[in-house]
Parts: sequence; structure tokens; C-alpha cells
Amino acid sequence: MSSTRDIDKLIEMMARLPGLGPRSARRAVLQMIRKRGQLLSPLAEQMAKVAATARECLNCGNIGTEDICDICRSEKRATGEICVVQDVSDLWAMERGAVFGGRYHVLGGTLSALDDIGPEDIRIPQLVARIENEQISEVILALNATVDGQTTAHYIADQLDGRVRITSLAQGVPIGGELDYLDDGTISAALKARRSI
Amino acid sequence: MSSTRDIDKLIEMMARLPGLGPRSARRAVLQMIRKRGQLLSPLAEQMAKVAATARECLNCGNIGTEDICDICRSEKRATGEICVVQDVSDLWAMERGAVFGGRYHVLGGTLSALDDIGPEDIRIPQLVARIENEQISEVILALNATVDGQTTAHYIADQLDGRVRITSLAQGVPIGGELDYLDDGTISAALKARRSI
Ligand SMILES: [Zn+2]
Ligand SMILES: [Zn+2]
Repeated sequence: MSSTRDIDKLIEMMARLPGLGPRSARRAVLQMIRKRGQLLSPLAEQMAKVAATARECLNCGNIGTEDICDICRSEKRATGEICVVQDVSDLWAMERGAVFGGRYHVLGGTLSALDDIGPEDIRIPQLVARIENEQISEVILALNATVDGQTTAHYIADQLDGRVRITSLAQGVPIGGELDYLDDGTISAALKARRSI
Repeated sequence: MSSTRDIDKLIEMMARLPGLGPRSARRAVLQMIRKRGQLLSPLAEQMAKVAATARECLNCGNIGTEDICDICRSEKRATGEICVVQDVSDLWAMERGAVFGGRYHVLGGTLSALDDIGPEDIRIPQLVARIENEQISEVILALNATVDGQTTAHYIADQLDGRVRITSLAQGVPIGGELDYLDDGTISAALKARRSI
């Protein structure tokens, strides 16, 4: 611990972030204090700004700073394709790949009997509504290749059967792997080789 | 990248902190946004608070929120002993060990011919002045067991020779090791087994 309560408290708060522990939090805080003009003050301001403006897109569940996110608002994005992902981090991974030009639907989780998570808990009714309202021709299921991810993919495919073309990422997603851990090239290959379910 | 400039900027700023990279910064920012009420806003406030109040102790070089730090002000700390450390992170490591009851002197670096760092650059004149002004009976040199750390220790020992008892951490500090990486028990053992130079 440092000799000051306010600094100790900042270290404790930083240590709770994913990827940081007590030791790395201490190093980060010391570094920030040493460069408080260039690092700590701007970071505090940017955090306050994001805290005040960040919200979930009412349409797709992406995180942005408006009620409807940049991707849903963009006229450059194809309107006929929806890529369904589990989390915002997966949407970000897809965007880094920069090979998908349509829009997204972020579930915010997967179906799970164990955790009592049903279709209404992961925005599936909203997805069904979008298929009806937005003239969607294809739904790409870009869910993790885990048991829960694939259970969710099959449930969605059953719900939408006959109303729209349903595909899933194919080549390149390793069994048991999570989308957010893949490199851009693998995501790109998997998207290009997508197949009908 | 996310779909929003402000969030991307926050991720970039977080990724520059020691111990974090782009991937862990993305995860930390997502987590903070999900819990913006409990996590992001309080963190922003705490950072702003520390940015506004943090400063170097005018006496010892420790980081605190007053001109004279808590340790230098404390009446519970022995006034006759000064423990000389390279960085504030080393002072924090000593305090976690909780076996030293005296005060500190933080050099903020080591002598280095290569980097043109001389005694005036690392608060050695201030240390010499404290020996004269504060009735110090012992100076404990708790410097890293690196070449630069030991060069600095010998330089300080030469400067103070004959004026005060000079000791150094002994047992337990591995060759080439850095103080901030040691466990509390090792630091405790090294302090108890300190020897005269
Ligand atoms: Zn959206
Ligand atoms: Zn002090």
C-alpha cells in the first residue's frame, strides 16, 4: 500500500479491472501519477465523458454514444444482412477484420438452462422483430464455437427457419474457441466460407 | 475498433498504461462501460481527485497528496532512521512488508554515466542535508541489486562515511533482482539481517 488513502483507493479500483491485478494496478497508478498532466487528467476526463454518454443501441445492442449506434445509422452499411454475435467484444473483433459490410445484432449472452437464461434474456425476440421489419435477406450466426454458443445458434435457426437465409461462420473457428481471441485473417476466412444451415 | 470515436480514444489511452495492451484495454473498457455507474464514473472521479492532489513529498520524494507526505508527518515513525530507495514502488514494497518503522528517502533513479545521471539528479544533496538536519543515526540503503543500484549505494556510502551508521539490505535480495518483485517475507528477512558497510 502507498501512504495515502486516495492513491490506495485508486489502486484498488484499477486492480478490479479485467487483465489487471494488484501489482500491475500499482505500476499503472504510479506511471499515471508521474505523468499526471499528460496521462491521468486526460484519462479521467475521457472516462467521465464515456461514462456520461455510453449506452446500448436500441436497435442492435452495440455500445455507442447515441440511442442508435454509428453502424445502425450508417448509410454505407448493407441493410439486408444481420450478423448475430454474442457480445460487443465479438462485434469489435468482426469490425477489426473489416470484411463484413452489413449490420449486427448483439445478443449479450447465450441461452443457458443451467443459468436460467432464456430467449427473452438475450434479445432474440428483438432479432425476430428486426427480420420482419428491416427486409433482411440473410442472417449470419457468428457465435462462439462453444456448446452454449452452438445451442443458441440452432435455437435461432429454428425460430427463423423459412423466413430468411441463415448462415454461420464456418472455416477457421476452432472447436471450443472464442471469437474475440481469433486473428483478423481467420475471421475473414470464416466469413467468406460461410455456409447455409 | 469499436464504432465510436470516444470509446476508441479511451481504449487507446488505456492501452498505453504499463501492463495493458490493446486487447486487455478493450476488455477493461467494455467491462467499465457495462458497469459505468459502479465502475467507470467512480474511477473517473478518483483519477481526477488524485490528478489534482498528487505531488512529491518535499522532504523525502514519496508520492502523496500533501507537500509533506503521511510518513514524514507521522509521529509514530522513528526519526533516527532513513531507508534510501530508488523508486516510490520500492517504498510501497517496503511498506507492504511492514517491518520498517523509520522514514524514507526516494532517489527517483540511480547514478548512470551512460544516461548522464549525476548525484544532483537523484536527490543525493537533499539526503546529505537531511542527515545533518534530522539527527539521523542510521541510513539503510535499500537499493536494487543491479550494477547501477550498487554503484549508487557505494557512492552514497562514500558521501556519508563517518557521519552516520550505514547499512544495506543483505540476506535475501537475489543478484540482479529488483526490490519491487520480491515477496514480503524476503524483504523482511533482508531488513532484519542488514549489515554495516
Ligand atoms: Zn446499433
Ligand atoms: Zn515524505
